[in-house]
Amino acid sequence: MTSISGREIPDYIQGYGPVKPFQGAFSDVGTKTRTAAKLTSVIPNHEKVLPGLDEALDKLGITDGMTISFHHHLRNGDFILNKVMESLAARGIKDLTVAASSIFPVHAPLVEHMEKGVVTGLVTNYMSGPVAEAVSKGKLKKPAVMQTHGGRARAIESGDLHIDVAFLAAPTADTYGNINGIYGKSACGSLGYAAADAEYADRTIAITDNLVPYPACPIEISQVFIDYVVEVDSIGDPKGIVSGTTKITRDPVALIIAKRAAEVIKASGLVREGMSFQTGAGGTSLAVAAELKTIMRQEGVVGSFASGGITGYLVEMLEEGLFRTLFDVQCFDLKAIQSYRDNPAHQFMSASMYGNPHTKGAVVNHLDIMILGATEIDTDFNVNVTTGSDGVIMGGSGGHSDTAAGSKLAIVVTNLMKARLPIIKDKVMTVTTPGESVDVLVTERGIAVNPQRTDLLERLRRTKLPLMTIKELKGLAETITGIPKAIEPSDEIVAVVEYRDGSVIDVVRKVK
Amino acid sequence: MTSISGREIPDYIQGYGPVKPFQGAFSDVGTKTRTAAKLTSVIPNHEKVLPGLDEALDKLGITDGMTISFHHHLRNGDFILNKVMESLAARGIKDLTVAASSIFPVHAPLVEHMEKGVVTGLVTNYMSGPVAEAVSKGKLKKPAVMQTHGGRARAIESGDLHIDVAFLAAPTADTYGNINGIYGKSACGSLGYAAADAEYADRTIAITDNLVPYPACPIEISQVFIDYVVEVDSIGDPKGIVSGTTKITRDPVALIIAKRAAEVIKASGLVREGMSFQTGAGGTSLAVAAELKTIMRQEGVVGSFASGGITGYLVEMLEEGLFRTLFDVQCFDLKAIQSYRDNPAHQFMSASMYGNPHTKGAVVNHLDIMILGATEIDTDFNVNVTTGSDGVIMGGSGGHSDTAAGSKLAIVVTNLMKARLPIIKDKVMTVTTPGESVDVLVTERGIAVNPQRTDLLERLRRTKLPLMTIKELKGLAETITGIPKAIEPSDEIVAVVEYRDGSVIDVVRKVK
Repeated sequence: MTSISGREIPDYIQGYGPVKPFQGAFSDVGTKTRTAAKLTSVIPNHEKVLPGLDEALDKLGITDGMTISFHHHLRNGDFILNKVMESLAARGIKDLTVAASSIFPVHAPLVEHMEKGVVTGLVTNYMSGPVAEAVSKGKLKKPAVMQTHGGRARAIESGDLHIDVAFLAAPTADTYGNINGIYGKSACGSLGYAAADAEYADRTIAITDNLVPYPACPIEISQVFIDYVVEVDSIGDPKGIVSGTTKITRDPVALIIAKRAAEVIKASGLVREGMSFQTGAGGTSLAVAAELKTIMRQEGVVGSFASGGITGYLVEMLEEGLFRTLFDVQCFDLKAIQSYRDNPAHQFMSASMYGNPHTKGAVVNHLDIMILGATEIDTDFNVNVTTGSDGVIMGGSGGHSDTAAGSKLAIVVTNLMKARLPIIKDKVMTVTTPGESVDVLVTERGIAVNPQRTDLLERLRRTKLPLMTIKELKGLAETITGIPKAIEPSDEIVAVVEYRDGSVIDVVRKVK
Repeated sequence: MTSISGREIPDYIQGYGPVKPFQGAFSDVGTKTRTAAKLTSVIPNHEKVLPGLDEALDKLGITDGMTISFHHHLRNGDFILNKVMESLAARGIKDLTVAASSIFPVHAPLVEHMEKGVVTGLVTNYMSGPVAEAVSKGKLKKPAVMQTHGGRARAIESGDLHIDVAFLAAPTADTYGNINGIYGKSACGSLGYAAADAEYADRTIAITDNLVPYPACPIEISQVFIDYVVEVDSIGDPKGIVSGTTKITRDPVALIIAKRAAEVIKASGLVREGMSFQTGAGGTSLAVAAELKTIMRQEGVVGSFASGGITGYLVEMLEEGLFRTLFDVQCFDLKAIQSYRDNPAHQFMSASMYGNPHTKGAVVNHLDIMILGATEIDTDFNVNVTTGSDGVIMGGSGGHSDTAAGSKLAIVVTNLMKARLPIIKDKVMTVTTPGESVDVLVTERGIAVNPQRTDLLERLRRTKLPLMTIKELKGLAETITGIPKAIEPSDEIVAVVEYRDGSVIDVVRKVK
């Protein structure tokens, strides 16, 4: 047994292997290796386009026990993972590990593949819906491995996660495998999460519903990394791929939280020339961006960049001149795709460049302000975005731990209570992001600063913001909700939560 | 002794190692490995900018016997190689191997470093001027290794050429090492030849005379590959970096050759929708482009791409709609830089994507028509662009062998005689590009088709073009010039000519 932040984690986990325990956000840096990559070189006149997926599967040589990968740029509109898995199941392949950068409700058919032993391993940065529930119920043979966006790129590039075959859903591909996500009926914009898969998998295939003559333009993923190309009718449902527009919340409580968060940012001294900012696509997060916009205008500052999954809202800030550039790993809406297509200041960012801790410097290292969500947060500021109040997996880090670690000011914004349950706990059910990376918690009833940030606390004390200790905030919530009964999961480990450096920060146990 | 195309090459060359003999242009394909790369990861707030080159050299830990690399995008205007070598020499470092993608007359100070043992090895794709002459005279301790543009990328990516420290001349760099060649007083455009160095060297440093706030935009080489950044007054002399404009020859003989070459292209059947084309920046090569332009207009075809070092002339063809896109590894003039900066259809191409035979498919594999020069060509169609008529090194393959191998129609254009010497020989002094890759020779007096290309010969026989065998052409020249006395070099090997796959296609011997 290894104790991490007071948690009991075995030294060895069946189906996962030896545990490298989490030792702190920056304990594992220095000399690193990007692993060697195998490839098959070709001569002129080699034809990469195959007539269909079945012919491709013949060529790809997938056998029992392999690891195959998918990216999640088509989100809940993705057809590719299901199509490929259906074909592989029909071929009687067993014991596959699916390394999908995220899993959505649309991927429900995976549950049956898990039950039948077609899929026995799952590596992902985020999962929600039936697959997440099935994993929580112990339906996957091996524990799922839950990584971060930067951690996945690290795992692939370091060789910790070896991919035998990468399936690349391609909104546009040419006949020699150059890919972009910008054009085509299934356009999704940046393909930042797919880059490492393309570069390091033994074999790669682009599956497209927009096959164009050579060469595609622009090129996000190069022909030098692609073995085969297959055209299909449709790679996804546009309605599930992007939202038309992402919108700011109208919920008055969320708006109060956003206003307070903006005041914290202002008081922190980080609103200054060259500042950088990231936020999610959620309503409250966008509301913080709206508040920040007003402050930036008032102060007359021009930021250096905003980053992450990009929304139309950040595009507007770019176009207004509030930021000089955007770093885009993924487009969240049509406006973001359009801007990424047309504006050279809206730049591509791979997942590795975004958050891989084992590069010569990821973008998150340069991030000033990060707005984060939380399912739970505990009195040590550890954040859970992996499991819900019922202990069932309903998310995962994504870029949460990456940006929290890199940013100068990581702000968790959340209602103090959700569904009549308090958000602050003595111990979160699952640690996704360690408390050392979280600087401040902003709720509608009060603001708690991580006591390690004495500098920030001092600055905020000069304001009229309602500061409390996190224990006081917790007490406040509990006077309203009472103290909820703790969930008691079983001993069986169903998922291993890897920190971005590949150490194990927590495990998820089967729900009873 | 190994016999390659009738040449005697030892199995082992002192200072080079065992010889892998050239066995044909596509004999070495299939399963390949991109090598592992070492890197040093950093945490947030790590400062990459160092006060000066000396402080950088302290940090970089360069010791005797290491390999250091440079790119040649600043061409004959480059200050960086000389600056760095001067500093290393002053530190008493010895026995360095300089891996510079090309060497120009401006790099003359290298000769003294060779004489003093500071530099004992040289790996390059092209060299002209005092360094080339000094190598030919045997002033370098080990034989120089002469690669191709694609072959150098292959050597670096495969690990055959391990770089300890890469020095990256950066027309623009930000404080975290993002680089582009587009902006700044030393702008050179695409940095295609520098990509592999940045990705695979153990340590990397960007040296810039245009240090900009984070983040640079656009980014050609990412922060994730750069350890340090240093600002200097000037990285180069703009007059030597690019020409104002590249111009078509006015020489009437060259214009005849160009016209004939264009007629060959037309007769080949390759002027068709989606065609692709590459030519150099020399006056005759550009004249071929001008002729082709007229033909393309007449036929009403739109080509897929033009590639290579890009000139304003190809930019005009892009802008006129004769090509859909350009692939740019290097900009030759200001118009090309401007277009590369402003036109998204003018795309970046790394040297690896350009011509590395050990990828999943380089751009040269898709090339239809390639216009090539020659110093000599022999009756087996082997081409020499490495040594002059005096046996002294005055060039090198650059992309010659890469494009010849990849293209469907590789046309050598040259005067039948130069400086009263015939160009066609029984055997070229040095084989740069093997005859099997060369399809046709166009001179002002006649056209010779490689007999292996019976299909092409048949097509050309239907035209009125002056076809001859290459031996007839050779005889024709010799009736005018007489048979020149063959040069007799010494036995000492001063350079090893590597084919793009890393095999040895020839050696250069010391001039007496």
